[in-house]
Amino acid sequence: MNTNAIPPNQIILTGDRPTGPLHLGHFVGSLQNRVVFQNLHTQFLMLADAQAFTDNMGDRDKVRRNVLEVALDYLAVGIDPAKSTIFIQSQLPELTELTFYYLNLVTVARLERNPTVKEEIRLRDFQRDIPAGFLAYPVSQAADITAFRATLVPVGADQAPMIEQSNEIVRKFNANVGQDILVEAAPVIPAMGRLPGIDGKAKMSKSLGNALALSASADEVSKAVKMMYTDPNHLRVDDPGQVEGNVVFTYLDAFEPDIAFVDDLKAKYRRGGLGDMVIKRHLEQRLQALLAPIRERRAEFAGDPAEVMRMLAQGTDKARAVAARTLSDVKGALGLNYF
Amino acid sequence: MNTNAIPPNQIILTGDRPTGPLHLGHFVGSLQNRVVFQNLHTQFLMLADAQAFTDNMGDRDKVRRNVLEVALDYLAVGIDPAKSTIFIQSQLPELTELTFYYLNLVTVARLERNPTVKEEIRLRDFQRDIPAGFLAYPVSQAADITAFRATLVPVGADQAPMIEQSNEIVRKFNANVGQDILVEAAPVIPAMGRLPGIDGKAKMSKSLGNALALSASADEVSKAVKMMYTDPNHLRVDDPGQVEGNVVFTYLDAFEPDIAFVDDLKAKYRRGGLGDMVIKRHLEQRLQALLAPIRERRAEFAGDPAEVMRMLAQGTDKARAVAARTLSDVKGALGLNYF
Repeated sequence: MNTNAIPPNQIILTGDRPTGPLHLGHFVGSLQNRVVFQNLHTQFLMLADAQAFTDNMGDRDKVRRNVLEVALDYLAVGIDPAKSTIFIQSQLPELTELTFYYLNLVTVARLERNPTVKEEIRLRDFQRDIPAGFLAYPVSQAADITAFRATLVPVGADQAPMIEQSNEIVRKFNANVGQDILVEAAPVIPAMGRLPGIDGKAKMSKSLGNALALSASADEVSKAVKMMYTDPNHLRVDDPGQVEGNVVFTYLDAFEPDIAFVDDLKAKYRRGGLGDMVIKRHLEQRLQALLAPIRERRAEFAGDPAEVMRMLAQGTDKARAVAARTLSDVKGALGLNYF
Repeated sequence: MNTNAIPPNQIILTGDRPTGPLHLGHFVGSLQNRVVFQNLHTQFLMLADAQAFTDNMGDRDKVRRNVLEVALDYLAVGIDPAKSTIFIQSQLPELTELTFYYLNLVTVARLERNPTVKEEIRLRDFQRDIPAGFLAYPVSQAADITAFRATLVPVGADQAPMIEQSNEIVRKFNANVGQDILVEAAPVIPAMGRLPGIDGKAKMSKSLGNALALSASADEVSKAVKMMYTDPNHLRVDDPGQVEGNVVFTYLDAFEPDIAFVDDLKAKYRRGGLGDMVIKRHLEQRLQALLAPIRERRAEFAGDPAEVMRMLAQGTDKARAVAARTLSDVKGALGLNYF
């Protein structure tokens, strides 16, 4: 489903693995949508620390530290805890209970066929030494989604098979108990595609060193724009330049609302006579204007981490109550309500 | 470790999958030990309904029904809820949380190599369609064992690899967090080997139809003994008979405390001149004497199922408090204690 075609009053589950600060790629791909969604839908935002453990057991401090950092990023971009329920995954035992029972509804072969898992296994070079928790991760995700009876899950295009896996579990569970206890979810894929890294690589990622963090200083923003990949054959201002694959133009498409202005720049650049410096200067102004208030709000919230943790505790309590209701329905349907 | 060589004050975790009534094989292999253990050790007895789901998702009513039936069997043989903590596995979410985190400490390849899992997969004819929950079952067992910081786990000889798997997780977890949070367990294998079915097959099992339930009526006991496999070549009383593989003698070894008397019977049987009827009559007397008081106590408890459920609720509360302490230590060591 496209973001523009969403009926109102959906239940949305989304979130982030707290393994590093959020960056411009997150902003374009998800955060800016969440700020809109929170006014139209019921939105749960999960800080997926437990999921991050599936491949970060050796670096737990990083995960713990980034729970607060990512929460600060959320608040900084305008996610409002009064409108969005922000919670910490590991503090909801209900999710592990659901995972436990759902594991009986999926075969190992089916999990191994999951395209997202396959790709992630390849990326992480696990080969035969896949941690069992990593293989079980689509099942854990199904637990997260269904616990909130989410109807919409914003995902990148490559994550759509995870939603299909979750819906399979929903259908299997409902058929098994003969009641419609769980709800299927639809993926929602952001209209704006994925933002490339400043080096032009398809994925912006802190570990690739090509990311611009939302918390970047004005100086870091400036440096990042200067380093940005443009057209390597555009050596002199007068040379015709290429717009496709030119990161500066991709970013202008993402951050400059005046489309006619960008189209005009593109035409000039293609003809020759427009230097990289000029377009970079314009992009930098846009990014500085975008990030300055985010940075300011972030600093404000960061000044009182205890208050942020109180907000997370409240969100977690609220989320837990919702998940507990679902779990109670699930266990009731399974006949696991003895007392 | 042999049952005779156990130092005092161990913490024992054991239990049963509530998939059918317990039988004489359970009595010999485990129940009679538990009645002794409860006076010497701290004993937790788990009704493993959640584990039973790994291969009984289609027959949940059976599992639910048998939770009460197995509890009645426990009480009938003399397990005392004041001395043993009897609890229902599914009512301890702490166990699924531990399972969830332990899954990150084991590779899929390692689980697939587990000899017990391999054998069970073969027995159940799962082939490639192993439910993920079934593959994860040694990890869930590690959660059960470690939640109670069990030092001893009574198992059949074929289940010893499960304890090794659990101890591997303990070592990996402790190394990972740099603290001795979890405790390794030793398997304890009953001195008396496994009791064969009444048909002479190695395993007594309800599903094989060769079991004698602890709740059997006097008439059923009588019939079972009459059907018992002896020596198929011992056609006339005067013929020499074979004692090895003769179920009646195996049972006499298990249930007749007068060893000299049994040795004498064996010698006579071997020589010829001792009929199957005679040895069967003696065995039947023994079994009736053993089972009559068990049946009587069982009927008494069965008359007040609400009281049995209250006892289970109490045991479950007590067990849950212990598991919650371990989980709190585990999550603390992992840095998952935010609030």
